Amino acid sequence: MTVELTGLRVFDLEQPRYHGAPMHPGHVPPGFTYVLHRRHEVQSATPDGRTASSGTLITSDHAGTHIDALCHQAVGLRLCGGVDAPAAATSFGYRELGVETIEPIVARGWLIDLGTVEPERWIGLDEVRRSADTQGVRPAAGDVVLVRTGAGARWDDPERYLRAAGMKGEVSQWLADTRVVAVGADNMAWDRASGDDPDTGVFLPGHSILLVRSGVYIIENVFLEELAAAGVHEFTFLCTPLKIRGATGSPVRPVALV
Amino acid sequence: MTVELTGLRVFDLEQPRYHGAPMHPGHVPPGFTYVLHRRHEVQSATPDGRTASSGTLITSDHAGTHIDALCHQAVGLRLCGGVDAPAAATSFGYRELGVETIEPIVARGWLIDLGTVEPERWIGLDEVRRSADTQGVRPAAGDVVLVRTGAGARWDDPERYLRAAGMKGEVSQWLADTRVVAVGADNMAWDRASGDDPDTGVFLPGHSILLVRSGVYIIENVFLEELAAAGVHEFTFLCTPLKIRGATGSPVRPVALV
Amino acid sequence: MTVELTGLRVFDLEQPRYHGAPMHPGHVPPGFTYVLHRRHEVQSATPDGRTASSGTLITSDHAGTHIDALCHQAVGLRLCGGVDAPAAATSFGYRELGVETIEPIVARGWLIDLGTVEPERWIGLDEVRRSADTQGVRPAAGDVVLVRTGAGARWDDPERYLRAAGMKGEVSQWLADTRVVAVGADNMAWDRASGDDPDTGVFLPGHSILLVRSGVYIIENVFLEELAAAGVHEFTFLCTPLKIRGATGSPVRPVALV
Amino acid sequence: MTVELTGLRVFDLEQPRYHGAPMHPGHVPPGFTYVLHRRHEVQSATPDGRTASSGTLITSDHAGTHIDALCHQAVGLRLCGGVDAPAAATSFGYRELGVETIEPIVARGWLIDLGTVEPERWIGLDEVRRSADTQGVRPAAGDVVLVRTGAGARWDDPERYLRAAGMKGEVSQWLADTRVVAVGADNMAWDRASGDDPDTGVFLPGHSILLVRSGVYIIENVFLEELAAAGVHEFTFLCTPLKIRGATGSPVRPVALV
Repeated sequence: MTVELTGLRVFDLEQPRYHGAPMHPGHVPPGFTYVLHRRHEVQSATPDGRTASSGTLITSDHAGTHIDALCHQAVGLRLCGGVDAPAAATSFGYRELGVETIEPIVARGWLIDLGTVEPERWIGLDEVRRSADTQGVRPAAGDVVLVRTGAGARWDDPERYLRAAGMKGEVSQWLADTRVVAVGADNMAWDRASGDDPDTGVFLPGHSILLVRSGVYIIENVFLEELAAAGVHEFTFLCTPLKIRGATGSPVRPVALV
Repeated sequence: MTVELTGLRVFDLEQPRYHGAPMHPGHVPPGFTYVLHRRHEVQSATPDGRTASSGTLITSDHAGTHIDALCHQAVGLRLCGGVDAPAAATSFGYRELGVETIEPIVARGWLIDLGTVEPERWIGLDEVRRSADTQGVRPAAGDVVLVRTGAGARWDDPERYLRAAGMKGEVSQWLADTRVVAVGADNMAWDRASGDDPDTGVFLPGHSILLVRSGVYIIENVFLEELAAAGVHEFTFLCTPLKIRGATGSPVRPVALV
Repeated sequence: MTVELTGLRVFDLEQPRYHGAPMHPGHVPPGFTYVLHRRHEVQSATPDGRTASSGTLITSDHAGTHIDALCHQAVGLRLCGGVDAPAAATSFGYRELGVETIEPIVARGWLIDLGTVEPERWIGLDEVRRSADTQGVRPAAGDVVLVRTGAGARWDDPERYLRAAGMKGEVSQWLADTRVVAVGADNMAWDRASGDDPDTGVFLPGHSILLVRSGVYIIENVFLEELAAAGVHEFTFLCTPLKIRGATGSPVRPVALV
Repeated sequence: MTVELTGLRVFDLEQPRYHGAPMHPGHVPPGFTYVLHRRHEVQSATPDGRTASSGTLITSDHAGTHIDALCHQAVGLRLCGGVDAPAAATSFGYRELGVETIEPIVARGWLIDLGTVEPERWIGLDEVRRSADTQGVRPAAGDVVLVRTGAGARWDDPERYLRAAGMKGEVSQWLADTRVVAVGADNMAWDRASGDDPDTGVFLPGHSILLVRSGVYIIENVFLEELAAAGVHEFTFLCTPLKIRGATGSPVRPVALV
């Protein structure tokens, strides 16, 4: 067996999912709704007294902890690899680069812990590399890199959460050059959720650099508090996006195994 | 590290997710819908030419490959452990035993491969144990057991898929007694999707035995064709249900690691 | 012909319907969402160049200008006429007293114009009757009575709109005793949307008096500004609730004909 | 008063609305779903014993009896009047010619009763005019013309309903030339729901002629059985589309007043 289960620690990296949790305004509506409509009730019991209950989920494909598919972003109406975005689009999703094309991610993972970064700040490469060096983080091709800004502790305060710090374009470029498979952070957009990169004047710089130019997935709203508290910086990272045909993203519950 | 990535094989156990895929009639409506509403288009580009696209997912919490939460079933209006089902229910899900209470599942997994079982047949314990013995399957407490009926190859034929064979109550009871964490199969309901267990006259016998009486999760519509073709019977099983607060189930993309 | 179209004036009594419009918090989620997913695009044109476009509506049955069905409210778990509410409920709506049982409403209508009433105030019967008398309003059995508080002019300010004045229970009782078919107002709940009737200590007093005890429908978020500006107090009122089987309410676009 | 209520007869022209009713395959998904999620239950009662119940509607804007907005159809990517369709489109509907721009329709209405027409047949102008003449139907500018094919009696048989007869392009052209405000029929698409007009080889010919070229609304799935049974051919027609901002259609419950 390639996984030793005895003594394995599993860190849950998903934020809880409910109406009222932080949501990027670009995805409201539809936001997030779960309604319970089929109830346990006497009148629908089987002869042995069994009843079933179920509900309906209505959600943006970018709600909560989620992964961005490559079709989520375009530059000059071209997706990653030059795919013609309007031509690939249908009423029900993309013919190419939809979230169902993401293989299950099982990779070496790294946590760069920046501590608690003040809100509304752009995080530069020097700062990220300094922490990485100190913490023994040495990402290589095929790895996944998670960055903690501390915002994940504020999931219960959507207004504050949306103002969290984000990565300058140069951070994204460094990781793209490293040829990681995916990056993630404990904020809404990896980049800052609003405002322009002070170096380049670009809004959501990492979204172009990573998804469109480099084919690197972005995982957003990752919960990193427990992983950081345990002082873990290297781990096995698992993330299994749902194969929603043609979708631009998927809710995920990533885990770190140590 | 407890996971050796070099040489690791990852088997994807999720069926593709799209409107028109097999669905238990009890969950239609709402069924499954994904619509792409936010398109890449020139008029919404940022100055650097970037555009974003996203969509809306409307789905039963029991669509496609999914896990049943304990609150999904009741007997005598009691959930697992005697929880009062009507009292625990709200418009937006259950206060107890919702799918968000399922820990990430990282466990030893076993595949019992019954080959291609004819449709509309109840599968008995002798048959299951015989295959298990032959295949070296020795489930213990805390493990996950998957059973292949071959129906997973017919996902593109919903009418046929819904007629797939399912487990007699005695199979569920054996696994419950073994104290596995979860069971799964490549059919709609683990049990047969319609009709009564010939031994006990009970509809969906495993749903009471496993979810209500034993606290064992059921994973449905698991894709097992590739795992079986590779002759794998023992593996590390990973499954990370989304923490949808109060929901009765969650879509999942389980994987087997070898 | 019973309708003389020449010279007929038609007053539109519906507020515009969009995400972000005022919504009672009890109906969020799901709130109101309309997404356009099927676009006009070259690749789906017929040979003669025709294309079609369509979208998806996801809405509370109590969003915007709407009518309350009798099954919307219960007292002691009994609907109007003593119907057992839990027994009548299904996952997909009520077996009895659903909105589809409301006949098209074509009735004599009356407008009682209270002017612009300050927010967060309970409106008493004396005040309503005084305006009615002054304005020549003499409701009788089978009529519809609309009351203007002026809040309808604030539809674009949801916070303010939700604080609008509402009717004391005694106003509802008077109209119930008059045996009108329906009442309506230019606020969220006919009653005040929050707080208790100062006379009786009851929250939403009109909802019990009208819907449960008297079988009188309530129409909410009616737009009355133009009707009032024209000084119209007597008119023909038309309102055609959608026959959504089992639903507890329906969006409507009532009109007044003069 | 311009409406004489005494002796007024009101004919309800809406088909009942439920999951499973006939639906054009182009609008599935999302189809039609209504779920009841907020139930009357003791634990949420106010001190005076009152409870509320409500649900969620998820529907195509072209489900059931509905009206097509002008933005629903384009030719050469131009809407009625030459509006650039892609430029007018947003994620949340059209900036121009959305269903909210339709005024309440209060007009003289005419019923042309073709009797029960066999399915899968294109109905020609001669046939329509002959019935019109016999029945005293003399449409003029500003009127609404409804045509009965008898399919409305088959609403409970979706497969049969979808095969109903429809109007040849020449019928649409005649009515467009007459400058009616709207047309309607008791079938899915006014035109036949599938197949090409035998004269012109065009699919859904009326959709271009009426909506794009002439600005005439189409009302589909109108229930005409009772109106026809009463032998009524001239009436006052009322139809109040919901002002769903930007939508391509709206559910409606038209009525005929006699």
